[in-house]
Amino acid sequence: MELPGRSCGSRAEVLSRLLRLGYPVPDFRTVPFAAIRRIGRGARFDAPQLLSEFDPSDLIIVRSSPERPEWGGPKPIANIGMCSERVQLLAKIHGEEEAAAVHAEFVQTFAIDVFGLDAGFFDELACSGISQTERLQCSLEHFCKTTGERFPESPAEQLEQACRFMARSWEESSARLLRTAMGAPDDAGLGLIVQRMASGLLGPNDGSGRATAIDRLSGDRVLSGSYSFREPGGGVCSTGLSELAEISPGVCARIEVLLEQLRVEFEDDREVEFSLEGGNLWLIGTRPAPRSPRAAIRSAVELTDDGLIDESDALLGIAADTLAQIIHPQVDPDCSNTVLAKGIGASPGAVSGAIVFSSAAAEQCRAKGESCILVRVETGPEDIRGMHTANGVLTGRGGLTSHAAVMARGLGVPCVAGASDLLFDAIRQRLISNAGRVLREGDTITVDGARGVVLDGVADLIQPNLDSYFDRFLKWADKHRSMDVRANADTLDEVRVAAEFKADGIGLCRTEHMFFEEERLTVMQEMIFAESPGMRRQVLDELLPMQRNDFMALLTEMSDRPVCIRLFDPPLHEFLPRDRDEIANLAIALNLTEHDIASRADELKEFNPMLGMRGVRLGIVLPEIYEMQARAIFEATVEVGRRGIRAIPEIMIPLVSANREVELVKLTVEKVAASVRAEVGIEFEYRFGLMVETPRAALRAGDLAINSEFLSFGTNDLTQLTYGISRDDSNRFMNDYVERKVFPEDPFCSLDLEGVGELLVIAAGRGRQSNPSITLAICGEHGGDSKTIEFCRKAGFNYVSCSPYRVPIARLATAQSAIRARQGTGDKI
Amino acid sequence: MELPGRSCGSRAEVLSRLLRLGYPVPDFRTVPFAAIRRIGRGARFDAPQLLSEFDPSDLIIVRSSPERPEWGGPKPIANIGMCSERVQLLAKIHGEEEAAAVHAEFVQTFAIDVFGLDAGFFDELACSGISQTERLQCSLEHFCKTTGERFPESPAEQLEQACRFMARSWEESSARLLRTAMGAPDDAGLGLIVQRMASGLLGPNDGSGRATAIDRLSGDRVLSGSYSFREPGGGVCSTGLSELAEISPGVCARIEVLLEQLRVEFEDDREVEFSLEGGNLWLIGTRPAPRSPRAAIRSAVELTDDGLIDESDALLGIAADTLAQIIHPQVDPDCSNTVLAKGIGASPGAVSGAIVFSSAAAEQCRAKGESCILVRVETGPEDIRGMHTANGVLTGRGGLTSHAAVMARGLGVPCVAGASDLLFDAIRQRLISNAGRVLREGDTITVDGARGVVLDGVADLIQPNLDSYFDRFLKWADKHRSMDVRANADTLDEVRVAAEFKADGIGLCRTEHMFFEEERLTVMQEMIFAESPGMRRQVLDELLPMQRNDFMALLTEMSDRPVCIRLFDPPLHEFLPRDRDEIANLAIALNLTEHDIASRADELKEFNPMLGMRGVRLGIVLPEIYEMQARAIFEATVEVGRRGIRAIPEIMIPLVSANREVELVKLTVEKVAASVRAEVGIEFEYRFGLMVETPRAALRAGDLAINSEFLSFGTNDLTQLTYGISRDDSNRFMNDYVERKVFPEDPFCSLDLEGVGELLVIAAGRGRQSNPSITLAICGEHGGDSKTIEFCRKAGFNYVSCSPYRVPIARLATAQSAIRARQGTGDKI
Repeated sequence: MELPGRSCGSRAEVLSRLLRLGYPVPDFRTVPFAAIRRIGRGARFDAPQLLSEFDPSDLIIVRSSPERPEWGGPKPIANIGMCSERVQLLAKIHGEEEAAAVHAEFVQTFAIDVFGLDAGFFDELACSGISQTERLQCSLEHFCKTTGERFPESPAEQLEQACRFMARSWEESSARLLRTAMGAPDDAGLGLIVQRMASGLLGPNDGSGRATAIDRLSGDRVLSGSYSFREPGGGVCSTGLSELAEISPGVCARIEVLLEQLRVEFEDDREVEFSLEGGNLWLIGTRPAPRSPRAAIRSAVELTDDGLIDESDALLGIAADTLAQIIHPQVDPDCSNTVLAKGIGASPGAVSGAIVFSSAAAEQCRAKGESCILVRVETGPEDIRGMHTANGVLTGRGGLTSHAAVMARGLGVPCVAGASDLLFDAIRQRLISNAGRVLREGDTITVDGARGVVLDGVADLIQPNLDSYFDRFLKWADKHRSMDVRANADTLDEVRVAAEFKADGIGLCRTEHMFFEEERLTVMQEMIFAESPGMRRQVLDELLPMQRNDFMALLTEMSDRPVCIRLFDPPLHEFLPRDRDEIANLAIALNLTEHDIASRADELKEFNPMLGMRGVRLGIVLPEIYEMQARAIFEATVEVGRRGIRAIPEIMIPLVSANREVELVKLTVEKVAASVRAEVGIEFEYRFGLMVETPRAALRAGDLAINSEFLSFGTNDLTQLTYGISRDDSNRFMNDYVERKVFPEDPFCSLDLEGVGELLVIAAGRGRQSNPSITLAICGEHGGDSKTIEFCRKAGFNYVSCSPYRVPIARLATAQSAIRARQGTGDKI
Repeated sequence: MELPGRSCGSRAEVLSRLLRLGYPVPDFRTVPFAAIRRIGRGARFDAPQLLSEFDPSDLIIVRSSPERPEWGGPKPIANIGMCSERVQLLAKIHGEEEAAAVHAEFVQTFAIDVFGLDAGFFDELACSGISQTERLQCSLEHFCKTTGERFPESPAEQLEQACRFMARSWEESSARLLRTAMGAPDDAGLGLIVQRMASGLLGPNDGSGRATAIDRLSGDRVLSGSYSFREPGGGVCSTGLSELAEISPGVCARIEVLLEQLRVEFEDDREVEFSLEGGNLWLIGTRPAPRSPRAAIRSAVELTDDGLIDESDALLGIAADTLAQIIHPQVDPDCSNTVLAKGIGASPGAVSGAIVFSSAAAEQCRAKGESCILVRVETGPEDIRGMHTANGVLTGRGGLTSHAAVMARGLGVPCVAGASDLLFDAIRQRLISNAGRVLREGDTITVDGARGVVLDGVADLIQPNLDSYFDRFLKWADKHRSMDVRANADTLDEVRVAAEFKADGIGLCRTEHMFFEEERLTVMQEMIFAESPGMRRQVLDELLPMQRNDFMALLTEMSDRPVCIRLFDPPLHEFLPRDRDEIANLAIALNLTEHDIASRADELKEFNPMLGMRGVRLGIVLPEIYEMQARAIFEATVEVGRRGIRAIPEIMIPLVSANREVELVKLTVEKVAASVRAEVGIEFEYRFGLMVETPRAALRAGDLAINSEFLSFGTNDLTQLTYGISRDDSNRFMNDYVERKVFPEDPFCSLDLEGVGELLVIAAGRGRQSNPSITLAICGEHGGDSKTIEFCRKAGFNYVSCSPYRVPIARLATAQSAIRARQGTGDKI
């Protein structure tokens, strides 16, 4: 028997391996890639020769054997050899009518699958109540009429047609597209397996099935699978394996033994395709047991415990991104809710709730204990209260890095962004779907933030389950990784999530969110209208105790783990009211005219706020804000120190572009530190560093590093500036761009290694050269992305920081990257 | 006599040179830097020893001799030695009263200048009508009472006090600041000249003066200057040189001969300080003749014609930026109009006119033949009509690279931008100055775009005069320069100015301005509402003939010189109306509802338009616009070709960040070119290239250059993105930043060599490596800046492109850079 090489495909390889291991595999021959390619182009194919190697009484099945299993291939064509002789043999055992039924079914399937005839005629025929003999006759006539040819009667003809059809199918453009998407090259090969059908139609209960030893969802060790067989006179019947045990006692036990053997031999949990023929068990194929991410982790842990694989194998075997499915609830794939709109899956997880159009409505819902979804055209800092309150977020505009998306991921709230199919009718407070469905406040929808889909009503959800396997698995990851994983967390809630997911610290705590709470907002507004540094200082003094409390809570929660606090960043106009009522209220509160408020707001208005008066520029022009924040940080450090926590806060300066900015702010911060030390008479430590967000900061990192203990790359803004693309506006063309491969990927999702990446490498090199002890990190949204993590490890970064809910993913990805490096899979960039 | 070396300062050097050349120089001694430094710190000074080297009857003057003339130094102290003996001698000749007057004047001057006494007392005393003897007595008593010392009576005491005072003055912080601004180092030295006063008080008409052989403003060869002498009994009298000729016949002829000799010896037109003593002419000093830029050019040309200097010297001798003063009218420095506000001098030149607040009002003014100034808080594309019409522009917001500033420079219209002192009361259509002056439409103001000042009413202006010397001088520059100078010109008017100033081509023709004309704007708006590519194409077809005419006019005007046309760049929302009336009109025109218009405008709204859907992104998502433009360019090329003009247009793609963008647009353009060639059956050439404006494009220049024939750096946007600063919003902190040296200079004025410059160098290197024949250029606002031009030459750029009105400046600066390079002053970066 010809032992197939690589050029016959993956199924051929597996079958050969099974044969070598001594398992019962039905007799088969392979047709290699090269032959299939020739056949596809019309070359002759010696079917009689091939058939001659089988017993004439065998029925034959032809199966795809693609170069890699995930590249697909046409579906199998079975029962080849079903000719008059064969049918007569069947008739002797099962009777004429039953034999005719089997024959008619073969003609129907072959006509539809191989010749592409419409299924409708055959379906009607089967249900028409005529006898099976008549049905067969009609089928053959219909075939003849439709194709202009007689139905291939001889087994050789059937085999040739089947193989030729499969060879051509492989070259069709839709098949090509599908496998290209899975990474197949243009010349990906298809082999064919021509095999004796070991599920004869002869014996009772003969049939075929699939089985695994683990539960697909939970990973529990339990035999599961399916079995199909032909019930006399009743067509094909499918059952579970427990029913099979009743029909064929002992078979399941044999399958269980088989699966256990395969698990050891293949060092993985496997699924088997098997058939039963007169009580004999045949193995037709095997592949890794399909499993959910949760089951995959349990399986990997158990394989390791059983000594079949080591921890590294276990860690490398799980795609890091799949952990998101374990952490968040998922929409049940079988649910039948109407899809209202598609958008961008901006924050994973799924949730159902009542529509609310404002933060206030969200709070009312929450007060009543009801779940709600905050629905906005786009969100801004004024919606933060609502986002904290709501159970899900849906926006009409904005991409993966829009305000809503970033906030939602941070909060772990499911979010669909940029659902531009939905018409947001702000005036009448309603949403209209493309299909015309009108939704009002209080109507229930389900947001699927993983797939970016909005469903009507309450959908069935699969709840997450973080079991002990998950914990053990991630502890292994922690053992293997060489980089720290911190979290981007602004609020105490987020910091708690980060701690729960065992983040090594906080890599980015944005402080501006702390100024939007109602009480504080008024103080901020008062500050904006203060006319002198002295007055500003006086107003900011009111915020000091609140900020100190914020920082005390964060430092206490993280205890000895580092907390990197970014000083105030956003433009001041974000704090001014926009609508008439709010302006009027503020005017009263500040004892000013509405005109004063409006004209100050007008003064502060910016053409491009992203590129305006924010970050360190505010810190230099209005140093009182940073003074207050630095004092709050230091006083909090002293205070938690009194309670036994030795915190070392990190102060991070945003949007730097020149070294003198760093020098000035550093001086301000040092002065405040000296004052606080003198006042309380207690020493404390802190670290001072920069967020590298402008291309210029990256290029000048050599200078900047002299005054910094750490450089943390804010790759969101850095990507915006390197490309000249506003992430909030990018949704207008990004989809089009990615579809047309103008950009291989959205650079806000996947770090642009060629452009932004080069800036990171330049900056890291220059920074380290002038300050060898500098800490290098990334704290943009990319920090949780596996490809970016690999890049950061290669560039010698000290840590990555990402959304709290991505911390487990990053822990795994950093471990995988370290393992691959040890194994020698790539090193220096 | 001690011959002073370098360490005695510039005046000492000049005097020594004059002595060596044999001119009559009054006897002098020098005090070197080191001695002055010691005296300033309180060291002893042997004044009697120094005085002993002069004749006891001499009066002495002490003059500053700073290391470089432009570094200043305290003013001279004269008449040292005016003691009783000396006064008695005077009295014998001129009478007691006259002698007392001279003595009193000396006491007064010495007390004020050396001892810092208040001038008020002495002025009153001089006018009080008392006798000169009484005046002297009172002065001496006042001195004694105020200082607690007696007035220094002996010549040695006076000399010591004077020298000590001058040494200390040199170290004062205000003096230090002034000379540091002129580039002086911290240890800049001051020497002193102690010299016999050769304008004795003895003879009639004895006195001192200054003279040059050229007119300060025009450069005409005519003796001019001033002379001061003491009229008996009437104090000091100042006259012109013609009066001197009447008093002392022959003196002026001698001075003219002297100036001619000095011109030859110093190879420059000189000013002399001279004195007359009993009819004898003494030379006291000489310096380059002060002259306006226009006079400087005439002088340089004539010196070259006379063989005294060569063309290189002539070219290096004129600061390139000063040409701006020749090209544009200037406000007469002596005018007395009230300053209403200060802003940023955003476009040079000065003009008076009536205030208009809208484009419509500007056009009405123009129709009446009246001059007007367009006054806006800030300008946008909708104001272009008004800016074309108005004679000057004044804005309340925006910096040197704001829309108003860039447009105004392009148009050569004087502009003051960011005049934030003025309150713009839009509702009541008026302006209020800081001082409370209220200005309404129609009131006349003067805008001084060179100094950034707004004056009340009509100010006296000095008109420009581009004479034949200017032309010859710039022709020399053209001979010496190694880089081309092109102009950024969008309209036919601008292109004509560029041609007049002999630009080597158009380096940047922005096409979007062509879409804002009324007729075209409606078509653009219709295009924005078109629902399919086909409909868009149909609408754009209406614009095609207009664009073709635009390009034909430009290509015809520039004839065989290259014209680089940048395809459409701005975001579409700039074309949609903002106010209610315009929205209503558009709705009627397009047969849509106002709601449709408003919601489309809302859809197109962007958070950061600078980083949004514009440039090549539009070209890819809505390729119909670029298709139409490319066709218009090619058809125009064919058409002008039929008229005998062999134009080779250049097509430039804006805002590129990835190579695939270039490939796609290049394909589009090539397809259009092929169509046009097939349709008309005529061959034509064009060049295809990119505007490098994003940091990513700079980093990826190696890829991009493969598909490009030229890379032109748009340093405005590149600076915005490298720093993360919107030029339109930067005025909020830029002044503060520059004043506090956070940035050494505004990077929008002066190219940031360390950051943006590095990107240019990286891009130039990578671009040239992958495409050695690539053309490299700069077309940002920096293109006309001397420092940037020097940078571009070093980086091997092929041309710079700047505002039409800066072309002469750039022609000179490129020549200077080339000459300095040949002379070996710096080479590789």
